[in-house]
Amino acid sequence: MSTLEHVLIGGRWCASQDAHGSFRAEDPARAEAIGPAFPISGKADIEAAMQAALQAADALSTISPSRIADFLERYAAAIDADGDCLVALAHAETALPVEPRLRSVELPRTSNQLRLAAQAVRHYAWTDPVIDTQAGLRAHRAPLNKPVLVFGPNNFPFAFNAIAGSDFASAIAARNPVIAKAHPSHPATSQRLAQLAHAALLEAGLPAAAVQMLYHFDNALGLAWAGDARLGAIGFTGSRTGGLALKAAADKAGVPIYAELSSVNPVFLLPGVLAERGEALAQEFFASCTMGSGQFCTNPGIVIVPEGEQGDAFVVAATQLFAQAEPKVLFSRGVQQNLLHAVDGLRAAGAQVLTGGSVGEGYRFQPTLLNVDGDAFLAHAEGLQAEAFGPVSLIVRAADLPAMQRIAASFEGNLTGTIYRPADGSDDDAWLALAPILRNKVGRLIANKMPTGVAVSAAMNHGGPYPSTSNPGFTSVGMPASIRRFSALHSYDNVPEALLPVELRNRNPGGVQRLVDGRWTDGDIGQG
Amino acid sequence: MSTLEHVLIGGRWCASQDAHGSFRAEDPARAEAIGPAFPISGKADIEAAMQAALQAADALSTISPSRIADFLERYAAAIDADGDCLVALAHAETALPVEPRLRSVELPRTSNQLRLAAQAVRHYAWTDPVIDTQAGLRAHRAPLNKPVLVFGPNNFPFAFNAIAGSDFASAIAARNPVIAKAHPSHPATSQRLAQLAHAALLEAGLPAAAVQMLYHFDNALGLAWAGDARLGAIGFTGSRTGGLALKAAADKAGVPIYAELSSVNPVFLLPGVLAERGEALAQEFFASCTMGSGQFCTNPGIVIVPEGEQGDAFVVAATQLFAQAEPKVLFSRGVQQNLLHAVDGLRAAGAQVLTGGSVGEGYRFQPTLLNVDGDAFLAHAEGLQAEAFGPVSLIVRAADLPAMQRIAASFEGNLTGTIYRPADGSDDDAWLALAPILRNKVGRLIANKMPTGVAVSAAMNHGGPYPSTSNPGFTSVGMPASIRRFSALHSYDNVPEALLPVELRNRNPGGVQRLVDGRWTDGDIGQG
Repeated sequence: MSTLEHVLIGGRWCASQDAHGSFRAEDPARAEAIGPAFPISGKADIEAAMQAALQAADALSTISPSRIADFLERYAAAIDADGDCLVALAHAETALPVEPRLRSVELPRTSNQLRLAAQAVRHYAWTDPVIDTQAGLRAHRAPLNKPVLVFGPNNFPFAFNAIAGSDFASAIAARNPVIAKAHPSHPATSQRLAQLAHAALLEAGLPAAAVQMLYHFDNALGLAWAGDARLGAIGFTGSRTGGLALKAAADKAGVPIYAELSSVNPVFLLPGVLAERGEALAQEFFASCTMGSGQFCTNPGIVIVPEGEQGDAFVVAATQLFAQAEPKVLFSRGVQQNLLHAVDGLRAAGAQVLTGGSVGEGYRFQPTLLNVDGDAFLAHAEGLQAEAFGPVSLIVRAADLPAMQRIAASFEGNLTGTIYRPADGSDDDAWLALAPILRNKVGRLIANKMPTGVAVSAAMNHGGPYPSTSNPGFTSVGMPASIRRFSALHSYDNVPEALLPVELRNRNPGGVQRLVDGRWTDGDIGQG
Repeated sequence: MSTLEHVLIGGRWCASQDAHGSFRAEDPARAEAIGPAFPISGKADIEAAMQAALQAADALSTISPSRIADFLERYAAAIDADGDCLVALAHAETALPVEPRLRSVELPRTSNQLRLAAQAVRHYAWTDPVIDTQAGLRAHRAPLNKPVLVFGPNNFPFAFNAIAGSDFASAIAARNPVIAKAHPSHPATSQRLAQLAHAALLEAGLPAAAVQMLYHFDNALGLAWAGDARLGAIGFTGSRTGGLALKAAADKAGVPIYAELSSVNPVFLLPGVLAERGEALAQEFFASCTMGSGQFCTNPGIVIVPEGEQGDAFVVAATQLFAQAEPKVLFSRGVQQNLLHAVDGLRAAGAQVLTGGSVGEGYRFQPTLLNVDGDAFLAHAEGLQAEAFGPVSLIVRAADLPAMQRIAASFEGNLTGTIYRPADGSDDDAWLALAPILRNKVGRLIANKMPTGVAVSAAMNHGGPYPSTSNPGFTSVGMPASIRRFSALHSYDNVPEALLPVELRNRNPGGVQRLVDGRWTDGDIGQG
């Protein structure tokens, strides 16, 4: 056991107390184990992390926000400074391209997100202070005062990593301790991030157990942990099966869980846009569907294409691009097997494979395009809208606008929905007929852009109706909204001013935006 | 069956299609049935209401907010104008006093709440518009586009009525159809309110099925309905047992449920306040605990009193007041039986009855005070903090400040927590030691006031950590926060301005408060 890497518990890197075994990362391009052995933690590690986090929760609740912001900014700077090492580790473990993906897109996105969290912390932007001077009531959002358990996904080794991504930054910003459950696909990347986080935490003077990390534990232990009422909340990004199992356990214990589960992100092409630039669109679609080997939550998994010549031409062009492409490396054998299974499922539900469907060397998978006509889709809408996580998309041919409307109406909740329209507005009647239906099925409605870009913005919604996420009112990306998920609403009734939290007092030296007697103001209350 | 009262389904008052039986209200003071017979609905009524609501959801999603506000204001005016009748019905069905409770407190509170909802609607205050001009992203809160099922409690025939209370007003304000499940303790009151709502709806030109009401259905049907994924959300106020059963069903189907479940609302008396005005406090406590026969979510169910002479004097004074009081009328035989059972449970867990514990004529119950010492409370904290819904409170004696801290730490989630401190601030060290612990156990922290007053204010929190409610981030009272529960987050990405909802466009003629590029403004965007 002494040869296993150390877990981060209670502010110290220490050997797992009760490892149930070990695992190693793999080079997905060659299906070969790489790097050191990491422990699969047992109950003792979990309980030790919980005990330490419970203590840290109290200290964090009352710590000054500027210290939290200081930590987030130090951590962001450390990530930027360590870019070469982080990118090398992540590339080795995920096979995602170094450029532009890891180095120029995901890494800066991750440190930027931590800095935006710091900014929201410094401005109290997530706390929504509301003051009613006449009623003697003052309310704001406050820490949960309990640990937040974050499950990171396989597909963003930095930006959604349980120890560095949006759920992490959000939970810490709200002054809660985080216990990160790294994804076993990229343990060394997660370890390196945790080392940077740990060092930044010591420099910023945060409680030692504010940030902890385990690499792996059995599903059964994970479910038991999700049902532990001592948790304040859970953040999860991953598969629908895993997410729903955790949600059931958490729900039963009254633990709020914010789970991002699955999405096929339908893309509708209105007829005019095919006339305008069908060929270019085929290229745009192909690029979006195969970028990152298609392993995006917002991958365009279904494209609705009008019947007729121009639609046919689009399908031919797209098929050619998919057919000519090299096989794409997936993250793991599990992802590869699930994708084979998903393509089989789509075929069984009535879709025809236009190209692809086969595996390649290592965990490679041939970019795959399937096809089904609109009536067949509607007849088997449930099976045909199952997510296929990887470089796979299903084309649905629609006879006319009413068919598009029926198809839109048949979707379950999704993260995104896209409509491509011609620039001259000639299809805007069709937009007006289709968009309201699609609007209510998705969290983000997109015009003329593939859904794979998820900007870190206060106006982003990386969320959507069930079953794409567990609640349609929340986003996991975009400060300060994502922070609010990990907060409790606190009202003070008739409490003397000197005993109130500073940001609810009359004097407002920090210029916090507050809703005072129905009006937003950053000023003091009274003569101040 | 033709003699049963009509249900409100699909915009019409009609006979129940499949009544499983009937029930009548009771005069709780005499335990005698009064008024007409109301149907217990079956599956056909439920499905008819669902179908009508699903259709109404689409129409409501796109209706102008001013029409919603118009409905809410007309309904509020109708309630005020019909006060005599409503108060007479509610008094007959609940035995709550006409003055001041029903006529001067609850009725105006209810119409005021509808008007505050209208105001939030007119100002788009619940929609949280966020615009990022550089990223081309614009987000706001929007209707769920699905029906909201509201379960009303027994204890507020107006202000929490499923057809008139905060959940109703909030769900409608967010432009969702409401199916109200009235409480069977006050069917005629609910019927009268529904008639006023229906008339206001026709005048305002809302979709006919925007507001529907059933009086009653079996628990099994209710659970099946809560698990219907066609619902957008559920609002529930009631017992913990019923609420948790509904929550389990809703969670499984991915239906967000906002449930207010139970609370004992601990009240801590610091030593100095007993010295200052112990006698007056005993009176204040007695009045709060017996008002409305103690049938409040925020009833002071546990009072923590320092040991020693002044504490003894407080207990003697309170015991005398409880002993001298007349028996209080409860809402129903069920409430009476549950309360007997709850008092038995407290005794079994180690509490001694100081006075009371017996039933009286009709559904009366003698105001009841129990006592336990601090160590015994801590040894059986789970059983001793079980809610006793009615004019019952448990006094816990605390040896010193550390004992108070341990007692505070032993509480599960509550709606409120109160600390009484002397006006001269001499106990503020004790406040600072105790308040942080209590703060994280409750939604509203109160100083020097009994918890039973729940002001309708934007800074109110009528919510709290589990198991007092299902999520610590939400309040069921206080606009606009309560409205957000019934909304979905919608982001628009790269959508041309003309195709955006009006409140997200550059021009802002309504002066909606919006977060534009990180700054709150009610102005236009660009040169506007």
